[in-house]
Amino acid sequence: MQSAESNTMLNRDCLVLALRRYCATVQNMEQTVLLPSLLRDVESDSDSDSDDRFQDCHSATGSSCKDLYDYYLMLKAVRNTVESGLVTLDDRKAKNQTSLAQNKTLEPMLEADPEALFHFHLRGLFSVMGNLTKKSQGVTTKYMDIIRIMN
Amino acid sequence: MQSAESNTMLNRDCLVLALRRYCATVQNMEQTVLLPSLLRDVESDSDSDSDDRFQDCHSATGSSCKDLYDYYLMLKAVRNTVESGLVTLDDRKAKNQTSLAQNKTLEPMLEADPEALFHFHLRGLFSVMGNLTKKSQGVTTKYMDIIRIMN
Repeated sequence: MQSAESNTMLNRDCLVLALRRYCATVQNMEQTVLLPSLLRDVESDSDSDSDDRFQDCHSATGSSCKDLYDYYLMLKAVRNTVESGLVTLDDRKAKNQTSLAQNKTLEPMLEADPEALFHFHLRGLFSVMGNLTKKSQGVTTKYMDIIRIMN
Repeated sequence: MQSAESNTMLNRDCLVLALRRYCATVQNMEQTVLLPSLLRDVESDSDSDSDDRFQDCHSATGSSCKDLYDYYLMLKAVRNTVESGLVTLDDRKAKNQTSLAQNKTLEPMLEADPEALFHFHLRGLFSVMGNLTKKSQGVTTKYMDIIRIMN
């Protein structure tokens, strides 16, 4: 028998719930951001943890995230993949180069301990979904700030 | 509009289906292996791709998989995690040491390109589920071979 607190903790860690939470957050972002083009050339400030990450992204050379509009598009693209539940072969090819180094690091682990690799990817997916959910909330908040200033 | 062949390809790549397929395969293994203790001290032969992996596992020093009985228990444990959909905090602590090196490798990627990291873990989870499904089928086949020899 688990306590209510323990159950809450476990529920927070459920991957399926994390995926649903992410989709709901992106939906809220979409419904709030009626003029996505207002996010162009907007850098986020560092008043929250998620915004710190935005700044890191902007300062990185050659990063795929250049402004909040890019984030907005990326967050929607990830949501589409989550909702379809699909990893297409084309997608695999496109991303192969990015993860080549990581795959080489993990190959010995796959041979020696597939259970550890399973937990690694499950935790990793859970973690990155939490991170992207924060980013989506950050975009929504920033858009509302922009609208407030304009009015 | 997608062709039937294309749809089949996409369906094979659906993570949720891969998880369901894995659970069904482990259930079949459980229903077949009525005397799991017969798997003790049994090494697998190399008559299939999945069996090659078993042999790699056995030859590895300090590996957590020692015989097919260990595999049997591991595959059931992973299935329980898949079915509950939970990653408990205790589990995280236990596995932290294993994935520490991998996490350090991935940290810069999380900052620079969270979308790539999302795809990396999604593909990784999909791949490891396929691998474990093969292992489960391998245990079932080997058990049936043992029973045949005994009779």
